[in-house]
Amino acid sequence: MPKITEFSAQNINDMQSARNRVTIDIVAVRNYLHDGQELWEHRRNIISILAKEPAFNTPGMEFKSRSERFKDGLAKMKRLYELVEEHGWTVADDVNLALFAMGEMLPVYLHNMAFEPVFFSQASKELLDHYGSLVIHRGILGCYLQTELGHGTNVSALETTATYIPETREFELHSPTMTSTKWWIGALGKTSTHGVVQAKLILPDGVDVGPHLFFVQLRYLGEAPGPQNHRLLPGIIAGDIGQAEGPKAMGGSDCLDNGFARFNHIRVPKWHMLSRFAQVTDEGKYVKPLHAKISYGGTKAFMEMSERLNGGDASLLAELHAATSGLKVLCTAASVQDLETARRSMGGHGYSAFAGIGKKYADLLPTVTAEGENYVLDQQVVRAALKAFTRLTAFAKTQSQDKLNEFVNSLPPSSVYLRRLLPGSDRRLSEPPVLFEASWTDPSVLISLLEWRAALLVHEVAQTTDAHDATIYQRVSKAVTEAFVAGRVGEMLALLNEREVIGPKDKEFVKRVYILYLLTTIESSLTDFLSFGLLRFPPCDSSPSGSLSRDPTKGLRLAIVRLCEDLLPEAIGLTDAFGFTDWELDSALGVFDGQVYKALWERAQTEPLNQTEVPDGYEEYIRPMLLRGQRLAGAKL
Amino acid sequence: MPKITEFSAQNINDMQSARNRVTIDIVAVRNYLHDGQELWEHRRNIISILAKEPAFNTPGMEFKSRSERFKDGLAKMKRLYELVEEHGWTVADDVNLALFAMGEMLPVYLHNMAFEPVFFSQASKELLDHYGSLVIHRGILGCYLQTELGHGTNVSALETTATYIPETREFELHSPTMTSTKWWIGALGKTSTHGVVQAKLILPDGVDVGPHLFFVQLRYLGEAPGPQNHRLLPGIIAGDIGQAEGPKAMGGSDCLDNGFARFNHIRVPKWHMLSRFAQVTDEGKYVKPLHAKISYGGTKAFMEMSERLNGGDASLLAELHAATSGLKVLCTAASVQDLETARRSMGGHGYSAFAGIGKKYADLLPTVTAEGENYVLDQQVVRAALKAFTRLTAFAKTQSQDKLNEFVNSLPPSSVYLRRLLPGSDRRLSEPPVLFEASWTDPSVLISLLEWRAALLVHEVAQTTDAHDATIYQRVSKAVTEAFVAGRVGEMLALLNEREVIGPKDKEFVKRVYILYLLTTIESSLTDFLSFGLLRFPPCDSSPSGSLSRDPTKGLRLAIVRLCEDLLPEAIGLTDAFGFTDWELDSALGVFDGQVYKALWERAQTEPLNQTEVPDGYEEYIRPMLLRGQRLAGAKL
Repeated sequence: MPKITEFSAQNINDMQSARNRVTIDIVAVRNYLHDGQELWEHRRNIISILAKEPAFNTPGMEFKSRSERFKDGLAKMKRLYELVEEHGWTVADDVNLALFAMGEMLPVYLHNMAFEPVFFSQASKELLDHYGSLVIHRGILGCYLQTELGHGTNVSALETTATYIPETREFELHSPTMTSTKWWIGALGKTSTHGVVQAKLILPDGVDVGPHLFFVQLRYLGEAPGPQNHRLLPGIIAGDIGQAEGPKAMGGSDCLDNGFARFNHIRVPKWHMLSRFAQVTDEGKYVKPLHAKISYGGTKAFMEMSERLNGGDASLLAELHAATSGLKVLCTAASVQDLETARRSMGGHGYSAFAGIGKKYADLLPTVTAEGENYVLDQQVVRAALKAFTRLTAFAKTQSQDKLNEFVNSLPPSSVYLRRLLPGSDRRLSEPPVLFEASWTDPSVLISLLEWRAALLVHEVAQTTDAHDATIYQRVSKAVTEAFVAGRVGEMLALLNEREVIGPKDKEFVKRVYILYLLTTIESSLTDFLSFGLLRFPPCDSSPSGSLSRDPTKGLRLAIVRLCEDLLPEAIGLTDAFGFTDWELDSALGVFDGQVYKALWERAQTEPLNQTEVPDGYEEYIRPMLLRGQRLAGAKL
Repeated sequence: MPKITEFSAQNINDMQSARNRVTIDIVAVRNYLHDGQELWEHRRNIISILAKEPAFNTPGMEFKSRSERFKDGLAKMKRLYELVEEHGWTVADDVNLALFAMGEMLPVYLHNMAFEPVFFSQASKELLDHYGSLVIHRGILGCYLQTELGHGTNVSALETTATYIPETREFELHSPTMTSTKWWIGALGKTSTHGVVQAKLILPDGVDVGPHLFFVQLRYLGEAPGPQNHRLLPGIIAGDIGQAEGPKAMGGSDCLDNGFARFNHIRVPKWHMLSRFAQVTDEGKYVKPLHAKISYGGTKAFMEMSERLNGGDASLLAELHAATSGLKVLCTAASVQDLETARRSMGGHGYSAFAGIGKKYADLLPTVTAEGENYVLDQQVVRAALKAFTRLTAFAKTQSQDKLNEFVNSLPPSSVYLRRLLPGSDRRLSEPPVLFEASWTDPSVLISLLEWRAALLVHEVAQTTDAHDATIYQRVSKAVTEAFVAGRVGEMLALLNEREVIGPKDKEFVKRVYILYLLTTIESSLTDFLSFGLLRFPPCDSSPSGSLSRDPTKGLRLAIVRLCEDLLPEAIGLTDAFGFTDWELDSALGVFDGQVYKALWERAQTEPLNQTEVPDGYEEYIRPMLLRGQRLAGAKL
């Protein structure tokens, strides 16, 4: 065998010299990113405990069958909650931190993120008294049954029924068609004992009052061991929807049992309806909720919103709906795209399972089509924007300048970009900025450009409602949401000066990172900026880069490349400040010491196929094939 | 259990009415797409044979472990070549058709696509006489060992050495470092008996003359069963690189054993050098090849090129290199992106492994970074474009108009767009077109726009070599290659009239599909068209859509949506004309009869996890967790 089995020190040296060039204060930036030293240490402590646990270090997950991986996931779930008890971790923040660090979608994630929040925000006092503590301590495991085989984003089309029976004070849940089968439900397939079911509420007089929520036991519990334990209750059939390997066709969420369920006229007592908002009287009379869309969805803003709603205030619901819809589209689409960009930037080795990106990509990928399909949500963002635009122009026609200013100042953050469309005394507001070389490093100019682009696109779509092309909803939704995010960047930059955890030099670094975000956001939609004449340069300098360029986008593009070159030496400092351990990243290409080739080599040696020199299947398949080939070739070897 | 277990006829009816609306002649279009009725029937015959074979219908592949899937792949490989013999299929076209239809990357694919073409194009007569017939009949199985752990696209950096030993007339192959380990080599890990190795040729005087190819036996063959069979030869260590599940982190190429290999001073006889072009004399004197890059790469154009090179003609190599580099980038990037667009258009169910897209995506994904990393290839396209531009401008300065016209007419297809930059008598050539509404359905206008954009971008980059931004190589490469493809679309449209297999109505349909390609190609790079002032409208009609729009891109965008609406009723006819069977597509969402929910349901029932109601791991993990939770909640259930 070759004598040279040592990897050279090149990788290590390269990483060390890169670290030597960093000028930012890594500890200070780390504490800034993690909201202080104390939270950082708490986080590090939890992760160091997890990293030592055998259950979270099962080797060769990627080579196992789906059933084996699912079982490994159950072992992780059990061990995690033992640790919660041993170390006194909180079942909310600490557990979610642990789940995130493990990088594995365990069945209990759905209990935590979907079942529990919906239960606590919408259950009646009786239901809370009876099951609240069990939900908190995972004495029951829940899931949230909304999507059906034939119905997803369009919640109002759900077919499952819950018919009220006044005689017994029960609801009868039923799956009337095959397409009404609950489908894709995380943790339903094999794990959950209970669920919250979205079903159309049918009153005794036959009137359908639309989707409402019902608490349903799915499987037998059992204190003593017994054959009945964990079996499905009569009238329910359920199972795993068989998503494996592939994204789920790509290795995504392998430990999670997305499932299906059908109900055959099963009964639940009346008090199992989640009736904090809408109710049914004993006789079967319907008591309306404050707002028609109140019962949709789970996921933290909802909690805050429900507090307000408890106080009778529904005014912010439309605003919240539009902003969260736009953010959902923007964040999911950007995350998926940026993860793939990161993977490609690793070159050929980025395709290796050992790079650690592929599984994260596969886990993230469904977010663009699930929990509100992005294309549909875009349309809702545009609808809200047009509504706000119509209100604004109507107001502008009939009110005085003072009243108008007052109205503009009261615009919610998600509509504030619309002020660009109104004549005003402030010239910076009423006219797009003229761009000088220094503009590309001025956040306020970049933010105003993003607001102008949103405003002019919404104006465009309002003027041309008769002739919409196929991309307009996506362009407008992106523009409106990016203007909203740009506003938040402006706020964060303003707040940055008040933060004492980092010094002036590091603040300048953080500011430049934000500027890079703003510049690349503009770059990714240059067509819009050019179409609406937003790249305006002073007349004496029609070529902004001062070169022979004819390209009006050149100045922006050069500003980006210069800023990247400027920030590049700090990049390793920034990633060190994130503080992810090798255990968390689980990537041969992301190892802290830079020894990527060594890491790839060592992982390959552990592969099951490499445990024998001649593979299983040689005698049966390879050898007969070779012998036939040799016979046909008339060759003796 | 619910009584309704039948799916409604809705899906079937929807598909039937969609088919009823088709106006194109599906059989004629099918024969057009498949180059005639005869080829179509040959193809259908092969696929119907494959679809009946148990080896190609192993259920639940996606739920198996990597080792099981690899073994299933070996079974498919063996059976495929039995069928080749039984039915007299050709080992080239017919086998490749079968492999493509199976949608599975089997180890023998690398023998067929990499090992065999390199062997036959570069082996000496002696090597061909000895091994040619064995290679053809798969009496040996080969792989192509180029990429190393530390070196991919940059072939000149390969570290593996082949040192000539004149005393014994042998080459000694050696892996001097760990980073020189051959890595990612398809079919090397567990299957191949032989390989062609790229290694730096070192002459007896120590001079390194760069990478050359050597034929090397890797594993023992054995006519009789024996423990030594298929084991690695002394001095070689090799194995699988452990890519599984994940793309290879996403379920890609699971049946393929990408592998690694290290050589410890192993000897091969001198005649094992692939020496058709470069040679070493018995004494160790190097005989140069006709062209320095002749020995790189495998993959059909190469074969044609090598014929020319055999005749001493190397002039087209640079042209071929630039055009194929650009096409490689364009085709791989577009395929990956379009496949993901198709997946998202299926909504939430597109994420299911049963949708059949995820695995195809994962199989295709490495093409953007492998076999020439796209970002690196872009730079080579730009370099070639700048060279052509420089030649053109130099020529323009010194020559007469007649000579210049002659030169322009002699431009190769990949540089023909540059004629736009030269003054000429033909006004359509020397000035970008003014766009009317009818322009959007005129292929010649769209092609000229794509040529103008390439020409102006190359001009821009030539003028500003001192200040390049991070995206310029990608933009120029895309522009140049899309201009080349647009030229080919123009040729195909011209040829369309001569084809007799389809009638005038179907020709009009095909033409509109081509126009849609041209329009969406322009749409995807509107920033460039706007930046260089290529969206020019007649002065009287600054608003091209005739509406209140301020958006100069609106006319193009509306033309696209109108054309899509126009073509939509024919879409199902076109996909029927492709002729893919349900067996080939292997997609619950792509079934011919449209019963997608039924297909999803039925596939889910077969999943291993659903074969027991209570999952393995319940007693061990789920129950203790629930009991602990119930104890903590102080609840009895």
